[in-house]
Amino acid sequence: MLSRLVRPLALALCLSASGAEAQTLPLPDNLTALNSQQGEQFFFESSPHQAYFAVADSFETEQIESYCGVASMVMVLNALQLPAPSSPQFAPYHIFTQDNVLDAQTDAILPRDEIAKEGMTLEQFGAVLALHPLALELHHAAAGGLDAFRTSARDYLAAPDHFVIVNFSREALSQEGGGHFSPLAAYDAKADRFLMLDVARYKYPPVWVKTADLFAAMNTTDSVSNQTRGYVLITKTGLITKSGAAR
Amino acid sequence: MLSRLVRPLALALCLSASGAEAQTLPLPDNLTALNSQQGEQFFFESSPHQAYFAVADSFETEQIESYCGVASMVMVLNALQLPAPSSPQFAPYHIFTQDNVLDAQTDAILPRDEIAKEGMTLEQFGAVLALHPLALELHHAAAGGLDAFRTSARDYLAAPDHFVIVNFSREALSQEGGGHFSPLAAYDAKADRFLMLDVARYKYPPVWVKTADLFAAMNTTDSVSNQTRGYVLITKTGLITKSGAAR
Repeated sequence: MLSRLVRPLALALCLSASGAEAQTLPLPDNLTALNSQQGEQFFFESSPHQAYFAVADSFETEQIESYCGVASMVMVLNALQLPAPSSPQFAPYHIFTQDNVLDAQTDAILPRDEIAKEGMTLEQFGAVLALHPLALELHHAAAGGLDAFRTSARDYLAAPDHFVIVNFSREALSQEGGGHFSPLAAYDAKADRFLMLDVARYKYPPVWVKTADLFAAMNTTDSVSNQTRGYVLITKTGLITKSGAAR
Repeated sequence: MLSRLVRPLALALCLSASGAEAQTLPLPDNLTALNSQQGEQFFFESSPHQAYFAVADSFETEQIESYCGVASMVMVLNALQLPAPSSPQFAPYHIFTQDNVLDAQTDAILPRDEIAKEGMTLEQFGAVLALHPLALELHHAAAGGLDAFRTSARDYLAAPDHFVIVNFSREALSQEGGGHFSPLAAYDAKADRFLMLDVARYKYPPVWVKTADLFAAMNTTDSVSNQTRGYVLITKTGLITKSGAAR
């Protein structure tokens, strides 16, 4: 019992001395944790907060390392309060989970065991999301530009029931890992940074990322699709519309 | 495919017409959702936000209906960034989960299958949490008073690495359900309300609750322990201290 207490204590002291966090990886200089003095300042100077509270209230960790797209999708579906399937453990209540969002229909697009192995491309992600009564715009980064992304994402995050999920290369952000999905939650015009709620919470905290850095990380090629990554603009209209130059 | 789209659409239109949310239950008048105009106003007039971002960044849903204490504990352990056990699905990274926070040591206090059946009493919750290098104060509501609770909880939420978990009767708050645990995340002095991040996210959203209502809901008898419910004040000192009149 004593050794159980002493070991974490010693570790905590070491980490605290170096300023590192005990769980998540250290952030590169270009990223600012939301839960920091600077991150809070960005939050309070960002406005409005239409998207933030809905997305933060639905924040969850990807169940396995390849489920970043699945977790991001579940967060936004719950944030939109769309009618959800049931879940045996929560009966009689309904909520989207990373289990019940995948079914025979999504298997026809991409089987669950393939998502578990390799994750999804942006196109596959969009196709799975399009099974829900949503209005979606899917944009590959190469097809648009930095300014178009900034404007669309900012406007979406400022409108009720509008959300943005980004697909980017972690390496291009100087993070550990490969292709990744996560929802955005706010935009700070003064700092020109977006707040991203990273679904790999065992690895990285929510961060404020510069628009140009995020766009550059989206403007990278996914070796499975041979297309650039990008972003999906999502809202609830009950109609599936697919605009966006890339589809 | 068509019927799959039409049915949720029709439902969404009905719900939207009535102003109800599609997923969570309607809130009684005494509770204000964080994700509402009034809820955001409470948030922006509350200060400081030491606890909020740490707890919100770690927000998760209880895995099963009786795991409210387990989920609340996991949120605070992750918010504190304490050295966590490994989790096979996230190797080599570490994070507290509702699976790995329970082990042979916690089974000796209360076996997992009993937690799954009945949840935990405040004492059992405190005993499980005390296995971690924390400074805890456990307070049964009957042993203190409303003012002592308000002062302590407010001060904890204003200090770095200090957190509060409440154990209360949902019925006393006019909610559906019985005894429940959830972390607090902020205090708005002007409204005299605490923000509670409810871990039963399939049922209720985060809410602002009046201090007097929350205290009354804690000052109810748990039929398993025959003692009143209450609250736990938690911080990270590496030392287990148990003060509080009730222990």
